[in-house]
Amino acid sequence: MSQKDTFDRVFNPRSVALFGVASQDKTKFSYYPLRSMLQSEYKGNVYIVNPKASEVAGLKAYASVKDIPGEVDLAIITLPNSVVADILTDCAAKGVKGAVIITAGFKESEDESGGELQKKIADIASEAGMAIIGPNTFGMVHLHDNLNASFTPYMSTLRKGSISLLTQSGGITHFLAPWVFGQTNVGFSRIVGLGNRANVDFADMIEYLLHDLTTSVIGMYMEGIDNPRSLLEAGRKAVGVKPLVVFKAGQVETSRSAALSHTGSLGGRHELYKAAFTQAGIITVDSLTELLDVTKVLALQPPPRGNRIAIASPVAGPALVGTDICETSGLCVTRFTAETQERLNELIPPIVARTNPVDWAFTTEIIELLLKDENVDILLLSYSFTDALIFPSTGIVEAAKTYGKPVVMSIRAPEGAWQKEIDELGSNGIPIYPMPDRAARAAVALTKYGDILREMGGI
Amino acid sequence: MSQKDTFDRVFNPRSVALFGVASQDKTKFSYYPLRSMLQSEYKGNVYIVNPKASEVAGLKAYASVKDIPGEVDLAIITLPNSVVADILTDCAAKGVKGAVIITAGFKESEDESGGELQKKIADIASEAGMAIIGPNTFGMVHLHDNLNASFTPYMSTLRKGSISLLTQSGGITHFLAPWVFGQTNVGFSRIVGLGNRANVDFADMIEYLLHDLTTSVIGMYMEGIDNPRSLLEAGRKAVGVKPLVVFKAGQVETSRSAALSHTGSLGGRHELYKAAFTQAGIITVDSLTELLDVTKVLALQPPPRGNRIAIASPVAGPALVGTDICETSGLCVTRFTAETQERLNELIPPIVARTNPVDWAFTTEIIELLLKDENVDILLLSYSFTDALIFPSTGIVEAAKTYGKPVVMSIRAPEGAWQKEIDELGSNGIPIYPMPDRAARAAVALTKYGDILREMGGI
Repeated sequence: MSQKDTFDRVFNPRSVALFGVASQDKTKFSYYPLRSMLQSEYKGNVYIVNPKASEVAGLKAYASVKDIPGEVDLAIITLPNSVVADILTDCAAKGVKGAVIITAGFKESEDESGGELQKKIADIASEAGMAIIGPNTFGMVHLHDNLNASFTPYMSTLRKGSISLLTQSGGITHFLAPWVFGQTNVGFSRIVGLGNRANVDFADMIEYLLHDLTTSVIGMYMEGIDNPRSLLEAGRKAVGVKPLVVFKAGQVETSRSAALSHTGSLGGRHELYKAAFTQAGIITVDSLTELLDVTKVLALQPPPRGNRIAIASPVAGPALVGTDICETSGLCVTRFTAETQERLNELIPPIVARTNPVDWAFTTEIIELLLKDENVDILLLSYSFTDALIFPSTGIVEAAKTYGKPVVMSIRAPEGAWQKEIDELGSNGIPIYPMPDRAARAAVALTKYGDILREMGGI
Repeated sequence: MSQKDTFDRVFNPRSVALFGVASQDKTKFSYYPLRSMLQSEYKGNVYIVNPKASEVAGLKAYASVKDIPGEVDLAIITLPNSVVADILTDCAAKGVKGAVIITAGFKESEDESGGELQKKIADIASEAGMAIIGPNTFGMVHLHDNLNASFTPYMSTLRKGSISLLTQSGGITHFLAPWVFGQTNVGFSRIVGLGNRANVDFADMIEYLLHDLTTSVIGMYMEGIDNPRSLLEAGRKAVGVKPLVVFKAGQVETSRSAALSHTGSLGGRHELYKAAFTQAGIITVDSLTELLDVTKVLALQPPPRGNRIAIASPVAGPALVGTDICETSGLCVTRFTAETQERLNELIPPIVARTNPVDWAFTTEIIELLLKDENVDILLLSYSFTDALIFPSTGIVEAAKTYGKPVVMSIRAPEGAWQKEIDELGSNGIPIYPMPDRAARAAVALTKYGDILREMGGI
């Protein structure tokens, strides 16, 4: 069975067996993975393995996975580290394809035996062709399959979409994931906590997700990398297929050694990683917010055909802030064609800026002029609410469609104000940010992705 | 009359006269300043000056400001630039103390005459001892006085608090201000759009606000500075009185020349400004979000007595991200005393990090240990929601009070979850951010402010 076939079974399992569920006691940690599975509208079979119970939560409990009558594709394990190897041996015998091992106490442990234990379970799994997600993970979620193999029931309620997240920290995952609730038209496909990466690493998941139709962009939170070569190789394979975005922690020695005790990761020199990522066509970001902002723009918009940006706003400040970021990031704040400039001078009063950036974006005609201009590849717009201002949302949507160029926006309004306009833009795939600098950084990343495609032969 | 006395009248006017209000037509721009005044629950008198009407919105209209029977402290002007000088001359004759000039077409204009016009109105005002807010401004708001002298009625609905914002762009102001709606226990005192700064500049406002009891921290959005010396002087005066935080746009040539046509500001070399600000004890930030994040922490918490930080989270990732930022920003991720470390080793299982950063912040006892430690000056905590996790919010509040040390937190939860805990922390002044990196940057800024106070003799 190829790794792809194995992963297909692990992420779209026909059935799931849970190990470590003894009761429906909410104060017990093992309560939560079963709750996740039962609340997720998962369509396959859910089995309980527990030799000490005959039934849990109305489900029959089996003494061993081998006693389960039907096939089992995925095991979810929360039992102590000492018994995990035996469980995996049973799972291998049963033909289980993979395991989510939530249990901690492996390579990340101070105790040397943890590393040995991890090697042991990795060997058992690899020999049997099983994929391990973890150990020491919050689990994983495949929203399009209603699969919530994690200890967090509410993960099932996240909006479905095309961003897949690969992370090395449950804590960070739980900071990143609730973000979708505030978004228009953005959601997740898979969220995978790789934990200690016993035999499934970032590179394996990237290669698999490159062929996943529900994933259009892959975002990553990374602490350390055991096999940088395979990651960079996966990055190069992704060029022209899907964008990869990474935020890497572990910049300083203290956090690198903390990462070692977190997921057993050896971090290397931060700058070296960043340079290597860039060479492999992987987009790097500098904050968790930017990781989300950039995956969003890449999920919604095609990259521009060049780096020439037009910047406009009904008021100067937000356009200035955008200009700073675009220019210092290597984008060209373009000069309009003579024809465009002439018409702008007719339409816009001389008391405001009429060259790029343009401080007067009140009408559809101005938006059309900017997008139509052959010197413009991408448009950055900012509108902040004032009671007197109406902005041409319909014109923006129509012009973006007509000229096929990406538009990135910042909009800020009090709750309830401009809701119709925001919904119209959002449902037409225009990425919207609450601050002009965040929108500008997203536009920069989208443009850089276009550069990657052109430089590395993706298009 | 001293500038302080003048400003007292301008920001707490007993009466306001509006120029340029002709009708209650919502499509007319001049509709909005009157709407702002009428909706703001302002307690003073509101007069209309309009020689062509006898009444507007139920208010008697006067042909000239000089015809108004009572005293007039503040004028709000939206009429065309050509008539502003005459209005100011009338206002001076009437003894008006100041004017908010929303009208554009002055120094920022392409046309040379705009600069001359600005000089003219500045001269009229200065000679009469009048303060001009603007021209070319959205206006200004003093929330504690229910004064909304702007074209944005909804500004009256912002939460009252102790942050004062000075900005050079209405557009940016309208991005920054709605942020308060999402905050716990944070609000604004004054928001002043300085516009072209005819005779009131950042320095004047800073010196005035240093004595304002409703302002505890001053945040600034700046594009250019005409008189850097007076600004730096004001910064030095503020040390030990109130923290100043600035975000400056105009990093690149394109945005500097755009700023010229926005508010007539000549920007200088960005790096030079940044260095000069730092020398003057002014905190600089790199994004609009950080401007808000940092003013918030400074409004809520006292600066720590040193730069030794303890970092903790129930899970490693967020603590790692915080460690990266603190260490690369010059903070000391402290070593705990032997006594603290010993007790932590007893309380925390060996499978997670027990030294700083601590990956196990589940109990009040652990929080107390960290805050009690004499090697700790400030505590950074991160909690992201999982269904199984309870965090010791009451313990955090109590320990922060007992040991008098600042606590900065990131919390992320789906809507409605942890509301009680978040409210408890928020109403006790603990600053909360939605991402661990944003909390870490806030903790860094608070610590740097402590450094400024110690180095520059503020304490």
